[in-house]
Amino acid sequence: MRIPFDTLRSEFLRILIKLNMHPAKAEQCATIFAENSRDGVYTHGLNRFPVFVELIKEGLIRIDAEPVLENHLGMIEQWNGNYAAGVLNAGHCMQRAIDLAKKNGIGCVAIRDTNHWMRGGTYGWQAAEAGCIGICFTNTIANVPPWGGIDPRLGNNPLIIAVPRKDGHVVLDMAVSQYSFGKLMQYQANNEELPLPGGYDSEGNLSTDPAAIMESKRILPIGFWKGSGLSLMLDLLVTILSQGRSTEKITESKKEAGVSQVFIAIHQPDTEMNHQLIEQILDYAKSSRPEKEGGKISYPGENTLRTRERNIKEGIPVDETIWNKVLSL
Amino acid sequence: MRIPFDTLRSEFLRILIKLNMHPAKAEQCATIFAENSRDGVYTHGLNRFPVFVELIKEGLIRIDAEPVLENHLGMIEQWNGNYAAGVLNAGHCMQRAIDLAKKNGIGCVAIRDTNHWMRGGTYGWQAAEAGCIGICFTNTIANVPPWGGIDPRLGNNPLIIAVPRKDGHVVLDMAVSQYSFGKLMQYQANNEELPLPGGYDSEGNLSTDPAAIMESKRILPIGFWKGSGLSLMLDLLVTILSQGRSTEKITESKKEAGVSQVFIAIHQPDTEMNHQLIEQILDYAKSSRPEKEGGKISYPGENTLRTRERNIKEGIPVDETIWNKVLSL
Repeated sequence: MRIPFDTLRSEFLRILIKLNMHPAKAEQCATIFAENSRDGVYTHGLNRFPVFVELIKEGLIRIDAEPVLENHLGMIEQWNGNYAAGVLNAGHCMQRAIDLAKKNGIGCVAIRDTNHWMRGGTYGWQAAEAGCIGICFTNTIANVPPWGGIDPRLGNNPLIIAVPRKDGHVVLDMAVSQYSFGKLMQYQANNEELPLPGGYDSEGNLSTDPAAIMESKRILPIGFWKGSGLSLMLDLLVTILSQGRSTEKITESKKEAGVSQVFIAIHQPDTEMNHQLIEQILDYAKSSRPEKEGGKISYPGENTLRTRERNIKEGIPVDETIWNKVLSL
Repeated sequence: MRIPFDTLRSEFLRILIKLNMHPAKAEQCATIFAENSRDGVYTHGLNRFPVFVELIKEGLIRIDAEPVLENHLGMIEQWNGNYAAGVLNAGHCMQRAIDLAKKNGIGCVAIRDTNHWMRGGTYGWQAAEAGCIGICFTNTIANVPPWGGIDPRLGNNPLIIAVPRKDGHVVLDMAVSQYSFGKLMQYQANNEELPLPGGYDSEGNLSTDPAAIMESKRILPIGFWKGSGLSLMLDLLVTILSQGRSTEKITESKKEAGVSQVFIAIHQPDTEMNHQLIEQILDYAKSSRPEKEGGKISYPGENTLRTRERNIKEGIPVDETIWNKVLSL
């Protein structure tokens, strides 16, 4: 079943207004959730919307709260998110970073006590649209064991890097776990093996069985010890730069609320030289002979554009159960 | 065979002076090469020194050249490395980033036409010693295929993130390939399998056989498609920020010279709060039960400190053939 973008967005808007969210904020939230589904990130669009509503009802997301600037050290700003909607706080911080970058070349904004930003790529696209390189990252609840350990003590801490480009921005949006829990559940629901090892089973063997990995809770970080180290560094950076809560503190509170994030923007002059350098790099990557006959090498963000086009034209594919649930909210 | 740090450094110094390098520069180069071996990164210390000398003799590294500031956009500086020694250029750029950060909170310095920086961690430690978060990355010659392709079109582009810490800085120094060519050669020389898949064999199967991987040239990026995307983004960032040469251009010239690099420093106030936040995060990671009885979870940089202490006390282990070669230079 496919639903037009505007229908999806209007439904989200209707529900948020009903929850007494300020109309301008409700508009922004509804747009981001609908865009996430439009771009193919269904897990952080429609599928996550009922959870978002639940958290608002529980008071873990405060619809009346506003982010407040607490400190600035030169070009670095520290904000308190006051548990407002994560998507609004994140959009606000990336905009601040962009404004700083346009004035000074670079801007760095950290925020504490914010909430889940849904799709990190949203803020990468935002920076790129504004003609800036965007780099942002967040911590999360502990869901990945550190290298050499079996208990989850690290988040899957997504890292986003975006570069503005005339014919479609280049946007990397990656969690440091090889697969997310959501992905594992999807493979399990379809009774499929993972295409590549995604973690360890309870005996400590690398496994492609989603159920075995979820049972052991030993999800694999990308590159084994390397992704483990990268996740730890990202937690250190967001926590000390925002003076906020680390993965440990987020995990202690059980609910994934009050996370810490960092947003960096670097202004990019829109020059012919930059255009050429970017195309040169993408063309070179694409000149590698494909592994499979007829295969194609994509740059980060390329598939997003294809999905976006199709979903705008044909409507956004929805899980009917979730869609009906949203209609009833 | 173990050699005292000072002996190693004096030998390097003697040779560089003989090559007519300015004494202050020779001193700095000799120290960095000796420190890399002291810290256990033998591949980019003693073992690489003869290649460094060779490149100086060939004129690919210009010992009389100086980096020159070409442009600055707010807090961002663009330097031309003029093919001077990569270790000197990199140290200079991280120092500029530190100076900018101490004034403005953050500094970002890009350099083009520079040379191999040897161990990227050197500049992470440098930033941390100066009380700054340090982030730096470089491009390299193409040695990793992009995801879905079989011909190398990406560099293994090392990424370094360092956080200053009272009882030993936290320093991640990782290339985006799972194993380096050097590591593969080491396993092959010892007739050992890799502990984890490091690439594909010529039939396209994931492999732990170093010889098979070197034959196919299909080295694995960390996290498969994720590391492939990260490598591409790092090449984009260093190339457009420095207006320098991309992995393609470096590869075309066959010799890995004239690379592009970026150095970011963020000043960190030395507060009790920061100290506590850092210890909290490291302690939490270490609280994961070890996979193996008696195992230990380390933070990035922890093993470096252990190796450093031992090598200072007992001398630095050297490959006798290479050491004798250096003595004869």
